[in-house]
Amino acid sequence: MVDDKPNENAASKAALKKEAKKAEKAAKKAEHKQAGGENLQNVKEEVDVSLGKYGKLPLIQSNAKNSDRKFLIVSELNKSLSGQNVWVRARLHTSRARGKQCFIVLRQKEFTVQAILNVSDVVSKSMVKFSSGIPKESILDIEAKVSEVPNNIASCTQQDVELAVTQLWVVSMSAPQLPLQIDDASRPEKAEDEEALNIRVNQDTRLDNRILDLRTPANQAIFRLEAGVCRLFRESLTKRGFVEIHTPKIISAASEGGANVFTVSYFKGNAYLAQSPQLYKQMAIASDFEKVFTIGAVFRAEDSNTHRHLTEFTGLDLEMAFKYHYHDVMLTIGNLFTEIFKGLRDNFQREISIINQQYPSEPFVFLDPPLVLEYNEGRKMLAEVGVEVGEEEDLSTPTEKLLGRLVKAKYDTDFYILDKYPLAVRPFYTMPDPNNPKSSNSYDMFMRGEEILSGAQRIHDPDFLTERAKHHGIDISTIAAYIDSFKYGCPPHAGGGIGLERVVMLYLGLDNIRKTSMFPRDPKRVTP
Amino acid sequence: MVDDKPNENAASKAALKKEAKKAEKAAKKAEHKQAGGENLQNVKEEVDVSLGKYGKLPLIQSNAKNSDRKFLIVSELNKSLSGQNVWVRARLHTSRARGKQCFIVLRQKEFTVQAILNVSDVVSKSMVKFSSGIPKESILDIEAKVSEVPNNIASCTQQDVELAVTQLWVVSMSAPQLPLQIDDASRPEKAEDEEALNIRVNQDTRLDNRILDLRTPANQAIFRLEAGVCRLFRESLTKRGFVEIHTPKIISAASEGGANVFTVSYFKGNAYLAQSPQLYKQMAIASDFEKVFTIGAVFRAEDSNTHRHLTEFTGLDLEMAFKYHYHDVMLTIGNLFTEIFKGLRDNFQREISIINQQYPSEPFVFLDPPLVLEYNEGRKMLAEVGVEVGEEEDLSTPTEKLLGRLVKAKYDTDFYILDKYPLAVRPFYTMPDPNNPKSSNSYDMFMRGEEILSGAQRIHDPDFLTERAKHHGIDISTIAAYIDSFKYGCPPHAGGGIGLERVVMLYLGLDNIRKTSMFPRDPKRVTP
Repeated sequence: MVDDKPNENAASKAALKKEAKKAEKAAKKAEHKQAGGENLQNVKEEVDVSLGKYGKLPLIQSNAKNSDRKFLIVSELNKSLSGQNVWVRARLHTSRARGKQCFIVLRQKEFTVQAILNVSDVVSKSMVKFSSGIPKESILDIEAKVSEVPNNIASCTQQDVELAVTQLWVVSMSAPQLPLQIDDASRPEKAEDEEALNIRVNQDTRLDNRILDLRTPANQAIFRLEAGVCRLFRESLTKRGFVEIHTPKIISAASEGGANVFTVSYFKGNAYLAQSPQLYKQMAIASDFEKVFTIGAVFRAEDSNTHRHLTEFTGLDLEMAFKYHYHDVMLTIGNLFTEIFKGLRDNFQREISIINQQYPSEPFVFLDPPLVLEYNEGRKMLAEVGVEVGEEEDLSTPTEKLLGRLVKAKYDTDFYILDKYPLAVRPFYTMPDPNNPKSSNSYDMFMRGEEILSGAQRIHDPDFLTERAKHHGIDISTIAAYIDSFKYGCPPHAGGGIGLERVVMLYLGLDNIRKTSMFPRDPKRVTP
Repeated sequence: MVDDKPNENAASKAALKKEAKKAEKAAKKAEHKQAGGENLQNVKEEVDVSLGKYGKLPLIQSNAKNSDRKFLIVSELNKSLSGQNVWVRARLHTSRARGKQCFIVLRQKEFTVQAILNVSDVVSKSMVKFSSGIPKESILDIEAKVSEVPNNIASCTQQDVELAVTQLWVVSMSAPQLPLQIDDASRPEKAEDEEALNIRVNQDTRLDNRILDLRTPANQAIFRLEAGVCRLFRESLTKRGFVEIHTPKIISAASEGGANVFTVSYFKGNAYLAQSPQLYKQMAIASDFEKVFTIGAVFRAEDSNTHRHLTEFTGLDLEMAFKYHYHDVMLTIGNLFTEIFKGLRDNFQREISIINQQYPSEPFVFLDPPLVLEYNEGRKMLAEVGVEVGEEEDLSTPTEKLLGRLVKAKYDTDFYILDKYPLAVRPFYTMPDPNNPKSSNSYDMFMRGEEILSGAQRIHDPDFLTERAKHHGIDISTIAAYIDSFKYGCPPHAGGGIGLERVVMLYLGLDNIRKTSMFPRDPKRVTP
C-alpha cells in the first residue's frame, strides 16, 4: 500500500471547517443507524457482514468486559509483526474516505501508523462509512492485521507496516469541530516550505486549548524532558547527601520588602505567597540538615509580559553548608548542571530530535568542568567589544546576552558561571567579598546567555546581617524572624535557585517560557 | 575516661536559666579577653601555652584560609582512629567545667561524641575557661586526639572513644539563652522515668522555635524519612512509565464550589489557590500523557484545628489512563504503597529506630499484595460489632478508626484499600458503579485506620459529566472549562491524591501532623 498522505496540510481554514461539518454529519448519521455498539448484535440488518465489529462503545464504566484483551502500543508496530492480529487503542489522527476504502492515521503520543478499511467479505460498506465519519481526535479500539508495505509510509512514524482493520470501536468521541488542528500545531516554526499555506497556531490559541496543543509530538517530548531535568536534579543531589524538604508557600510577611508579592486572604487576616523558599532552606541549614533541596511553586507578582517571565513557576532550589569557602557550593551547583546536561544528552536524544523538528536550534554545548568567570573578567570581555559596564553596575538583559555570545565564541560553551558580582547589586543578605569591598561572594549561572540561577554565600551571622540590612535601609523589625534564625549558631552556607521552565526553554533553544510551562501563568493568564 | 553525663536533664527551669546566665557571663568575659581569634597571636600573654589554639574565629567569609583542612564526621569516630589527630566541626551540645577540666559533648545531626579539655602543657587554664563559657548550640571547629575509653560512654552515640581537644575555635556563637533545650525536646514522650522531672517542650514552643526543635535526633530522622517517601513514590512511578508534571497553584475558579478555598489578589482581579491538582492531572491525561504524577503544595482554607489537618500540605498525586477497568489503577496505587513500605523498611531502619526512641509505636505491618475490601464488607464487619453504617452513608472518622482496628485484628495489616464507596458520598465527577446504582468506582486507602488517599475512576465523558453535575445541583457555567477538557476525546482514567505528611505521621505512629510538616500551616499558624 502506498503512502496515503492526507491533504489537509495544505488546506485553507474554510476547507477545514467544511470538512469537519461533513464529518460531523456522517458520524451522526452512522451513529444513529447503529445506535450503540453493545446492541449491534440485536439489530437485524442482513447485509451488514461487519455487524458487531464496529460502532460506538458504551461508556467504559469498568464492567469487567474485555478486560483480558491485550493491546500493543503503536511504537511497537513493525514488520516483524506482519500477518498478526493486534489490538491498538489510539486517537484518530486523520481519516479520508475514497470510494470503498477509508484510510486512517492512528496516533498515540508522538507515534503514528496508517490503517485501512477496504470493503470486503469481512468489512461492510456500513463499517467503512461509519469509520470515515468519526471526528478526528476520537479515541478508537482497533483490531487489525499487521501487513508490511512495499514502500515506506513517509508521513507516519511506523513506516514499514499498515493495519488492515477488522474491528473498530469508538472509545471516546471527540467533538467534530476542533479549535486547532494537531497538524497545524505541530508544523515546524521556521519551515521554508513556501508552496504550502503553512497554517500555524498562535500562542494564545494554543494555550486556550492546551489539552489539544499538548498532544503535539514536540509538546509530548518537551514535558517528558522537563520531568527528566527534575529527576536528574534530584538524583544528582540525593547522591551527594542532600535531603529533600518542603517549604511553605503561604508566609506571614513579604520576604523582600513586599514588592512583587501576591496577597492571600487567610481566615480573618492576610498572608502572602512565597517568592522563593530561601528563608526556609536557610532555616533547614540552621537546623543541621546540612544540604537541602526543594522543588516547588514560586510566585512573583511582577507585571512583566515578556518571553521569560511567569507569575508562577517551578523552583529548583538548593542550599548547602560549607566549611571555609563558598566555592565548594558554587562548584557543586556547577557540577550538578553538568550532570543534568549529560543526562539529557545521553537519555533524551529522541525527545530532543522530535522537538528540534518543530523548533530547530543549535545543540546545547557545555564544558566539563564548567567554565567559571569572574565578574570583572566578564566586564573586560564586554569592554573589548565597546560595552562599558561599571564596577558596581549590574548587567542588563541585552548585555548578558552579548556576554553569552562572547563566551560562546571564546570558550565554545552555552553554560557558564559568573562569580563575584558587585555587592551593590545583590540583596542585603549576600556575603561581602572579604578582599574587595565592592565585590561579593555571589554568582549567577547562564544558559545561552540568559540567567538561570542566582546564588550566593548568605550572611550567617545575625549581627552582621542586621548591619547589612540597615545599610540597605531595611526596617529591621520586618525581618526579625529571618535574622533570629541565625541566633543559635548557624554554619556558613550558600545556595541558589533555578527556574525549571527557563532551564528547559534555554536548553532546547525555545523562544518563549510558555512553551515549557504546562499551564503557564502570567499577568494576563490564569486559565486553563 | 568514664561517662560524664551532664546533669541538666533533671534540672529545673530556674536552674537552667541560672546556668545559661552564668555561661553567657563567662563567654562574654572570655571573648572580651581574647578579642578575636585571628588576633590571638598578637596578644602578649606569657602564661597562655594555648595561645593561637583557641578563640572565636573571624566570620567565615571565604577568604581561602584553612580550605585544605580535612574534617571527619562525628559518626565516623570510633576506636579504629585511636591515637590519631582529627578535625571535627560540630555543635556544642553540652559542656561542664570541673576544676581544671572541661567536659563537652559535641553533636552533629543525631550523632554525639564526648570531648575533654584538661589543663596540661598544651592546654592552658585560659583555654579551658574559654571553652567552658561557650553557649550551647554554638558551632565549633575542634582539633583533637582520638582516644579509646575503657568503659562505654552511654550518653553519646560514639561510645568507645573520646576526643582530647588540642584546638577549639568558635565558628558560630549561639545566643546563650535558648528558648528550648535540645535535650528536653528530645526526651521520649511516654517515658516512665518517675524520678526525673522530665521536662518536655510543648508543641507551640517547638514550632515557634522550629530551627532548634528540628535539631533533635527524632526530627532529623523524620524529615530524612519523609524525603525517602517522596523518592520511593517517584521511583516506583517513573519505573512504571509515569511522567512528572507541575500543575498551577493559582487558578481562576474555585474548583469544587468555592468552599474552603483561599483567595489571592491577582493584579487587578482575584484568583484562588488550588485545593488539588486534580483538574490539571486529568487535563494531562486528556492530552495523552497517559500516566502522570505531581508532588506539590495543596491548600485547604478549612478552619479545622485537629491533629490531622493542615491548611497547606504536600500532595503526592497521580492519574492514569486505563483500558477497561479502574482496578488497574487502584492496584497500581496499592502496589506503589507496598513498594514505599518495603523501601522504608529496608532503607530507613536506623531512622525509624531513632524516631521510636522518642515516639514509641508498633512497627507498621502490611500485606503484599495489599488487602482490598469492598465498602459493603467493611459495613458488615462494623455491623458485627454493633456499628451500623447506612448503605449510602459515609464513614465517620471514629468509625474509620474502628474499622482499621477490626481489619488489623482480622488481617494483620496497617494498610488496606476500601473499594466501591457509596455514590452519594463522592464528588460529582466520580464514575458510578455500572452494576449498582448506589455504588461508585471509588476507593479510599487507609493507614492505621486513617484515610491517606481518596481516589476514583473519573467520568471522562462530557455529556455524562454534565448530567452528574446537574444532579449534584452544580451550576454548569462554573465548571464549563473542566467539562470542556473532555470534549476532544479522553481515555477512561482514575487516580488519587495522597497527603505526604499524613502518610509519614501514620507510618511512624505519630499523634500530630505538625510533627511531619517542617514548617506547618494551620488556621492559627503561618510562622515561622
